[in-house]
Amino acid sequence: MEQANADKNNSFVIRGNVYHTPASGAAETFERAFVVCRDGKCARIFEELPEDHRELPLKDYGDALILPGMVDLHLHAPQFAFRGTGMDSELLTWLKERTFPEEEKYADPAYARRAYGMFAARMRQSATTRAVIFATIHKEATITLMELMEETGLVSYVGKVNMDRDAPPGLQEKTPLISAYDTIDWIDDVRTQHHFTHTWPIITPRFIPCCSDSLLEYLGEVRRLYDLPVQSHLSENPEEMKLVESLMPDAAFYGDGYDRFGLFGGEARTVMAHCIYSPEEEVERMREKGVWIAHCPNSNMNLASGIAPVRHYLDKGMRIGLGSDVAGGQTVSIFRAVTDAVQVSKLYWRYLDRSAEPLSFAEAFYLATRGGGSFFGSAGSFEKGYEFDAIVIDDSRVPHPQPMSVSERVERAFYLGLDRNCLIAKYAAGTGIRLEE
Amino acid sequence: MEQANADKNNSFVIRGNVYHTPASGAAETFERAFVVCRDGKCARIFEELPEDHRELPLKDYGDALILPGMVDLHLHAPQFAFRGTGMDSELLTWLKERTFPEEEKYADPAYARRAYGMFAARMRQSATTRAVIFATIHKEATITLMELMEETGLVSYVGKVNMDRDAPPGLQEKTPLISAYDTIDWIDDVRTQHHFTHTWPIITPRFIPCCSDSLLEYLGEVRRLYDLPVQSHLSENPEEMKLVESLMPDAAFYGDGYDRFGLFGGEARTVMAHCIYSPEEEVERMREKGVWIAHCPNSNMNLASGIAPVRHYLDKGMRIGLGSDVAGGQTVSIFRAVTDAVQVSKLYWRYLDRSAEPLSFAEAFYLATRGGGSFFGSAGSFEKGYEFDAIVIDDSRVPHPQPMSVSERVERAFYLGLDRNCLIAKYAAGTGIRLEE
Repeated sequence: MEQANADKNNSFVIRGNVYHTPASGAAETFERAFVVCRDGKCARIFEELPEDHRELPLKDYGDALILPGMVDLHLHAPQFAFRGTGMDSELLTWLKERTFPEEEKYADPAYARRAYGMFAARMRQSATTRAVIFATIHKEATITLMELMEETGLVSYVGKVNMDRDAPPGLQEKTPLISAYDTIDWIDDVRTQHHFTHTWPIITPRFIPCCSDSLLEYLGEVRRLYDLPVQSHLSENPEEMKLVESLMPDAAFYGDGYDRFGLFGGEARTVMAHCIYSPEEEVERMREKGVWIAHCPNSNMNLASGIAPVRHYLDKGMRIGLGSDVAGGQTVSIFRAVTDAVQVSKLYWRYLDRSAEPLSFAEAFYLATRGGGSFFGSAGSFEKGYEFDAIVIDDSRVPHPQPMSVSERVERAFYLGLDRNCLIAKYAAGTGIRLEE
Repeated sequence: MEQANADKNNSFVIRGNVYHTPASGAAETFERAFVVCRDGKCARIFEELPEDHRELPLKDYGDALILPGMVDLHLHAPQFAFRGTGMDSELLTWLKERTFPEEEKYADPAYARRAYGMFAARMRQSATTRAVIFATIHKEATITLMELMEETGLVSYVGKVNMDRDAPPGLQEKTPLISAYDTIDWIDDVRTQHHFTHTWPIITPRFIPCCSDSLLEYLGEVRRLYDLPVQSHLSENPEEMKLVESLMPDAAFYGDGYDRFGLFGGEARTVMAHCIYSPEEEVERMREKGVWIAHCPNSNMNLASGIAPVRHYLDKGMRIGLGSDVAGGQTVSIFRAVTDAVQVSKLYWRYLDRSAEPLSFAEAFYLATRGGGSFFGSAGSFEKGYEFDAIVIDDSRVPHPQPMSVSERVERAFYLGLDRNCLIAKYAAGTGIRLEE
């Protein structure tokens, strides 16, 4: 679907101080190097630009930092409107009191356009180049969101949410069949009426407490029919897990509740947010079936959910990336998610498992780029053949009294949140993104 | 010492949406209210401005938020230079590998002026109005820092650090007597050569691992002689505590090591940073002697130190405020310290003590203002007679699609870190602070 980008305009060279992580925890840095983009894909990083690339347009970013774009594996566009407020409660209360009342508003197309417009503008101006996004149950608003995301130039999956129980009437689809029908209608509309080149649908059961078995069964069918990926929530909160156990007593564990309907990896490319309390057999099933984990440390603190055992997941070779989880998380910044991931891993080590070594900065950086990027194929690194996603950070705007290495500068940029005031350029799939208002 | 501020220029009125916490967790809000400053002190908050205040100059900040200035009870000015880098280690390693090599550079007055200049500029532009600051062992550099802080207009305590053991030669004062002599020399110099009106010296033994008994004894004497307050570190890290136990086997607990030399509350107004692992008798001694606790959640995550039991301290009626602890903490932002304090309190509740209710936003706000402000007398609130410290946040720069209450707007401003791009005015002790470069 990305052929539209594969024209001559997507071949160029940028120059600066390059940092990326081809392997977990293993950063590579290059001073004043050339990164070549050919037809929207990374060609190579060169210290000296070879003859055969010199005909390409060159943008020299001087002493700035060039990094792969950030990947946000989990966030809720409609919750952006109340991010950073109402932080004094736990998941199930917060859903009822803050989230559901807001999401109901997206039945109104005018409100949806206004609020999603703010969300899309912020995403465009962030360091994120790829995102996996929840919308609401509303078809029209979801299409509006997809139009707005397409305009940003970011690459994204956007899901119309499915919910048929345990929610206010305005957020509850009448029957499983109607929910499935609306989903098909939405997918067909996207496929036939729109010509998105970098905005795709994803099957999005909210979570088991809001989805009957019958709805999940239909969604499994719809997914197979259109060969779409899947996103949902998993093992985030102890109360939620008890609720799932009571709602689906036959499931071997929470994730099995998705798996029995074909919504948990395997042919269904799937990302599950949180996975804080996953029992070992759930982890093993995720590993077998190649389910991605979206680790959302900021949200997991705000909702008092806990800390996911990321070191354990890395040791097992799980697929894992980072999510901002706005608005459980307060910000779309994946720079923030990286430093939060390091910080909570230190508390995890200190209090929960002294054998679980804290994440290094380079490991968390990997999660935010190549880790999450793998959900999109080959993205999140400047290796040959990878999608050309890049951000450029001019950290000279924050003075320092002494020389720093490229690695130190990158670490500092993340800890100081320089994605906000020092992001000067961004490319997604080889296309430059406009950052100004 | 603040008489210099008590002139007619320090009487005025500002107008906007006011939020403060006269009691812990109990926020008061006023829409479009008038806050009156008379001779540098708060007069009152008025919904309608009475006749007898109408002759005062009025600055109307429209729909912006007016809050008490933030108080930073603990940070290290020389560490500002490497904030946000080298975050992959624990306290004692980090001190040896990152901190001490940097602090040695402050023997060079030119380096000190350049690096402290950057620090002071950032403090000026932050939401902080009052701070308690560590310098280094170097007298000249410490005076430079005090001059620079005085120029900012902020109110601060600045301490020349004392260290006579367990540090590189360049950071170790030769003998306890020389360390004490240099301290007296520094205090005398400040008193006789300088005419600071809002920058004061504070006795600053680094921490017991770096201070011999003999040095602490001298410092107790110097403190009494000049009637100065005290700052240090306490019970931050398990390895540090073992070290203190081995160095001072007679002390009943870590804090007793300061107390036996008159450096732990009572007549010595004292702030101790961290207090994560304080045994109950240490807490009790602190309570009896009125020692302030500087809670530094960001640093405590970065150095994998742990989480201080703040709910327990609040329940016991301890004196407690927040510290950025730059550069264990990555940022001087006390907005960030507030949300970090809430977030780690949720993890504390989840994993360490289910009876320790998480901090509410308003409780953490109180710590950042009136809690820490009490170290300076009456500061951190707009109650009558309090020092007039205020910040003004124009949060309209971050759009939102729906109306929000003043409380929600304040919470959002903190979670989104709007002290960085939306701070439009700041007053300390009744004096306006210049925010531009």
